Amino acid sequence: MRSAGSELGAAVLAAGLGERLRACGCPKPLVRVAGLPLVERAVRTLRAGGVRGKTMVVVGHRGEEVAEFVRSRFPDVEVLENPDYARGNGTSVLGAVPHLPERFVVAMVDHVHTPDSVRRLIATPGDFVAAVDSRPSFADPGEATRVRLESGRVVALGKGLEPYDALDAGLFVCSRAALEPLGGEPGPLSWNAIKRKWLASGGELAACDLAGAPWADVDTPEDIERAVDAVLAATRGSRDGFISRHLNRRLGRGITRRLLDTSVTPDQVSLMSFALAAASAGLLARGSLAAGGVLVQLSSVLDGCDGELARARLESSAEGQVLDAVLDRGADALIIAGMALGSRSRWGVQAGFLALAGALMVPYTRARWEAAFGEVPEEFTGFAATRDVRLGVLALGALTGVPASALLAVGAGAAAEVVRRLLALRGRRLGERDGREESGGEHLSDEDTLGDRRFGGRGAGGAYGGGAG
Amino acid sequence: MRSAGSELGAAVLAAGLGERLRACGCPKPLVRVAGLPLVERAVRTLRAGGVRGKTMVVVGHRGEEVAEFVRSRFPDVEVLENPDYARGNGTSVLGAVPHLPERFVVAMVDHVHTPDSVRRLIATPGDFVAAVDSRPSFADPGEATRVRLESGRVVALGKGLEPYDALDAGLFVCSRAALEPLGGEPGPLSWNAIKRKWLASGGELAACDLAGAPWADVDTPEDIERAVDAVLAATRGSRDGFISRHLNRRLGRGITRRLLDTSVTPDQVSLMSFALAAASAGLLARGSLAAGGVLVQLSSVLDGCDGELARARLESSAEGQVLDAVLDRGADALIIAGMALGSRSRWGVQAGFLALAGALMVPYTRARWEAAFGEVPEEFTGFAATRDVRLGVLALGALTGVPASALLAVGAGAAAEVVRRLLALRGRRLGERDGREESGGEHLSDEDTLGDRRFGGRGAGGAYGGGAG
Repeated sequence: MRSAGSELGAAVLAAGLGERLRACGCPKPLVRVAGLPLVERAVRTLRAGGVRGKTMVVVGHRGEEVAEFVRSRFPDVEVLENPDYARGNGTSVLGAVPHLPERFVVAMVDHVHTPDSVRRLIATPGDFVAAVDSRPSFADPGEATRVRLESGRVVALGKGLEPYDALDAGLFVCSRAALEPLGGEPGPLSWNAIKRKWLASGGELAACDLAGAPWADVDTPEDIERAVDAVLAATRGSRDGFISRHLNRRLGRGITRRLLDTSVTPDQVSLMSFALAAASAGLLARGSLAAGGVLVQLSSVLDGCDGELARARLESSAEGQVLDAVLDRGADALIIAGMALGSRSRWGVQAGFLALAGALMVPYTRARWEAAFGEVPEEFTGFAATRDVRLGVLALGALTGVPASALLAVGAGAAAEVVRRLLALRGRRLGERDGREESGGEHLSDEDTLGDRRFGGRGAGGAYGGGAG
Repeated sequence: MRSAGSELGAAVLAAGLGERLRACGCPKPLVRVAGLPLVERAVRTLRAGGVRGKTMVVVGHRGEEVAEFVRSRFPDVEVLENPDYARGNGTSVLGAVPHLPERFVVAMVDHVHTPDSVRRLIATPGDFVAAVDSRPSFADPGEATRVRLESGRVVALGKGLEPYDALDAGLFVCSRAALEPLGGEPGPLSWNAIKRKWLASGGELAACDLAGAPWADVDTPEDIERAVDAVLAATRGSRDGFISRHLNRRLGRGITRRLLDTSVTPDQVSLMSFALAAASAGLLARGSLAAGGVLVQLSSVLDGCDGELARARLESSAEGQVLDAVLDRGADALIIAGMALGSRSRWGVQAGFLALAGALMVPYTRARWEAAFGEVPEEFTGFAATRDVRLGVLALGALTGVPASALLAVGAGAAAEVVRRLLALRGRRLGERDGREESGGEHLSDEDTLGDRRFGGRGAGGAYGGGAG
């Protein structure tokens, strides 16, 4: 591990007045957006995006309140008081520079970003890099600093700049060496003025184009809603199926939005979704198909909210994901068993066993594949392979009075998907073997990895065979 | 990646006469033991045990036949002809030394070892290390070279040595610098003589005690059976449940032994086990409980043989393990559905849904846990948590005419195990949180990993929530 001194640090600028948000009652850095005070969101986003080194929050206006909050929430974050904050936010950056590692991120506390944008920014080379956005979807072009670009670099910037190519997204990577010479004179000193000074001195300001990634700056109470939209837009699951994209997420987004500022945890949402599924199973087993079908779909909608909520609050965890996944399997089992028993026909029960086996084996093959190979092929998220589609078909079958047919459809679709994955497994093995034979004739020194490939699975030892608990 | 020159190499000594195996008709290195010619087994074992550098097979007696086989099987292994082999196997080592990297393993082609023993040997520090065995279970103390040990080093060696502490297991790590000065004179030169010369010159011969690990040397036709025993002993699954240990493995070992020298692949055994399960499901669904129960248990026995066969032939693969695991889930689904439908009672069907959900969710929680955290706690292999036990209960229930009760028992046991694992998940999360709070007050530089822990799951992004296909 590298020492903290050589790791990427960060400075969060949280010293400004934030007058237009005075109505919120608290200092701007403590205004809650999508469940988190802005300063907490900024620090968490930076950490989640890959900032591992010293992180610093620069406070000024109502600095004591902000400092107290930061110290209580992040014992490992340093707070720097900037008595000069009234001269402009440039003084906050220059004040922090001597305390930061050689390379660091500068973030505005009132700019809401995703960890992914931070990752993209810090992967961009350069002594001074600005995140810009050529296709802003949530930020206000009238408010933001505009930039003009030439061959991937910022060449001019300003609030009213015309023409302009992109907006300044309020997120930067800087090197100490670049910023240290730029201070000095008394008088107003904005961060924009420092950037202009850098350009005037012949420095290169590289641009990292976020190109439509969700972000927003928060200056007015109205901006808060826009920022929440941006946060929620970034929580879309990458494995959403058809029904999730077109129905569940639209309904679920409203629920998630309402939950954001409550104390309800994502795990509790997972449990609520499971409870709804259990209730629907009871109704279905008793023959109340319509009511049961509605609850199935509600449970499916709510199932998307736990992850959204966790991601929006930047508190996703692998444990939460495992809990959600296991509860989903239990919920599916209850729903399918309830529907099969409620069908009161032998073929409904047979279809139920097929559907249950399929609904559990599709995610099982994914999990087992991921455990064995570390990643899962894109094509595993096919039309019929996602939970939202399975539950949608079951709900529809219940509502239209054909539960057994719905079970059969789900079971047959899932069985086909499992077979498709087993064929992919076979393809993977044959591919490995071909690769081996092709490289077989080369010289040993080019084949260091041959042994790894050939004997790769063996180290796992006991994983094969009998005890598959 | 390090260059091939700096990686651990290996020399397999395959030049000797092997007179007592002449009856086998082929040169000793080509005598098949547990499905593989000795020389192929030696090379595969070394590779699987971690040898990544230049590997060399030294041939002498009937060298052309052995060389041709090695070249056809391993294009990346070098063959060295030793015209002097009749002077003793020491000449084979010294002849190979100039062509080998600085550090290399020396293996006797007629000593059968496991990859794990190779791993342990090469992890032992020293310029010259010998694998020895203080508790030999398969080797013949009358035949083998004996060694006397003092504080972890070999201090004397010889065929008839008395008293002795361990057997020489015919597997060494040497450095070129240690061996280069030890040649020279004409006349007989055994590998044992070289080791004695090294000791006499004040060199240290470190001992790596295999302490009962399965290995055997093969000099006579009778030795072959002993070596097969050793190979099979090393294939025991680390996750065997109660029934597997006490019943299935005993029956299955005989089947595996018969399959070793056939062309049947492990995947084909997996498919046969699945086919048996499908046949048993058909019988159970028709109400033929006794016949169905017998087939269930046979399928369970055969399920252990695919992994044994793959490990004995040193051809385990992650793909084979995934195939086996997915087929096992399908087989369980068929057996449980067949039994539930065959019970012809509503409560049998209800118990069937519970059993099917449980039998699939127990392995699902394991796979999902492994995919998320990379390793699985020991306690996941509890009494009721393994497939052999679930199938044993079902087979017994069918044979004794109480299929519904057996399904209920399997379902209840599995449900309890799933709940136990969810509690373990909760414990894991609480543990993480405590760890975080404890270390929260320390200085940043000691907390480089804090960010990783706190935001660990987030990088996975889309894994949470809706689409769980």
